[in-house]
Amino acid sequence: MEPLDTHISRQYNVELENVRSLVLQMGGLVEQQIEQAISALVQGNVPLAEAVIVTDYKVNNFEVTIDEECNQIIARRQPTAGDLRLVLAVIKTITDMERIGDEAEKIARMAVRLAGEERPKNNYMEIHALGTHVRQMVHDALDAYARMDTEAAVRVAQEDLKVDQEYEGVMRQMITFMMEDPRTITRVLNVIWAARALERIGDHARNICEYVIYLVKGKDVRHISLEQMEKEVREGS
Amino acid sequence: MEPLDTHISRQYNVELENVRSLVLQMGGLVEQQIEQAISALVQGNVPLAEAVIVTDYKVNNFEVTIDEECNQIIARRQPTAGDLRLVLAVIKTITDMERIGDEAEKIARMAVRLAGEERPKNNYMEIHALGTHVRQMVHDALDAYARMDTEAAVRVAQEDLKVDQEYEGVMRQMITFMMEDPRTITRVLNVIWAARALERIGDHARNICEYVIYLVKGKDVRHISLEQMEKEVREGS
Repeated sequence: MEPLDTHISRQYNVELENVRSLVLQMGGLVEQQIEQAISALVQGNVPLAEAVIVTDYKVNNFEVTIDEECNQIIARRQPTAGDLRLVLAVIKTITDMERIGDEAEKIARMAVRLAGEERPKNNYMEIHALGTHVRQMVHDALDAYARMDTEAAVRVAQEDLKVDQEYEGVMRQMITFMMEDPRTITRVLNVIWAARALERIGDHARNICEYVIYLVKGKDVRHISLEQMEKEVREGS
Repeated sequence: MEPLDTHISRQYNVELENVRSLVLQMGGLVEQQIEQAISALVQGNVPLAEAVIVTDYKVNNFEVTIDEECNQIIARRQPTAGDLRLVLAVIKTITDMERIGDEAEKIARMAVRLAGEERPKNNYMEIHALGTHVRQMVHDALDAYARMDTEAAVRVAQEDLKVDQEYEGVMRQMITFMMEDPRTITRVLNVIWAARALERIGDHARNICEYVIYLVKGKDVRHISLEQMEKEVREGS
């Protein structure tokens, strides 16, 4: 990919830099939504959960604005090669970020429901741990995007496997709780939905890393194994 | 949007028609995957479920191929206005179709697990009903896409609300089963995952309809109410 400063048109550079900056702002907002949704659930903080729910429209607005910017750049600047990949990667990245925002909103809704129920002795430790892990993944994915760092992108994709294992562990624990005390089924199901949302956020973070690799290497690494992905990234670097 | 036949370049027409045809083929495959996954679960048919699981790579291949075609068209033909919207709508549509394929695969995995368990008296009637409904939604979404029919697209989006209600009903029923007989918890959770996957497929079908409206009307109708969506479609038609 050409470095941004080789474009003849200064205005074009400004446009690309603007899109990049909007994506990072959107990412910052999405990270905050995840963090607050988890805190709201763990602490039983209903006002914080409600703040996450009402703030989701801002994530959506970012998606619409950035999409429109990208369309305009394609129509006006007719980018090719690396520049085109950049714009197309942004279009895909923001779709995943918007869906991360939706999952954060779902966690916040579960937080509201759970706040009315008896709190478990472990204070939702498992959601706190899984949530911290997933939030770090999203942070690292955005960091890989900001620095165009394909090695970091591969590490995040590897982390997704660990998140999936951790999620499976949480699920087994939840099933045990329900079996031991069926009166907790409704409550525990809400915890399960929150855990499921976190697992989905991990998948979206991995998707974003795949776009980073596509953008830098020009290679489509979706639907291949982690080993193949590593190989693609190492080649020619 | 310009009709396809007004393009000066015959080759360009061929390229756009080819992408359109690939999207419809991919849609046909995805519909078949949903249908077979549901049948496999309802009938306890493990070989059919395994066929769905191994066929998912074909859905993924369609995504990669169509994405590449779209990138080439943008780079070579530098489309603007309606043509650009067409290509961008395809890029988004195939992402949702690929994820529908993933959900069908998940249902097939649940079918394999459930085939080893005792069958419920109602033969998974609720999954059959919800599955039929969702499959029809996907079919109608693809039909709206093929015919560029925004009115049909709005009807599919409205159907998604009914699917969500039906899904909530299934969930309540499943919670009752688990409470009545906690030994069924593990089995019923697998049914819940299948129902959840179907509900997600409904969301993706709705997304596809939103792209149809964007494509035909040039209006972004994501993140607005159904009433607003109807209004946008009726205006100027």
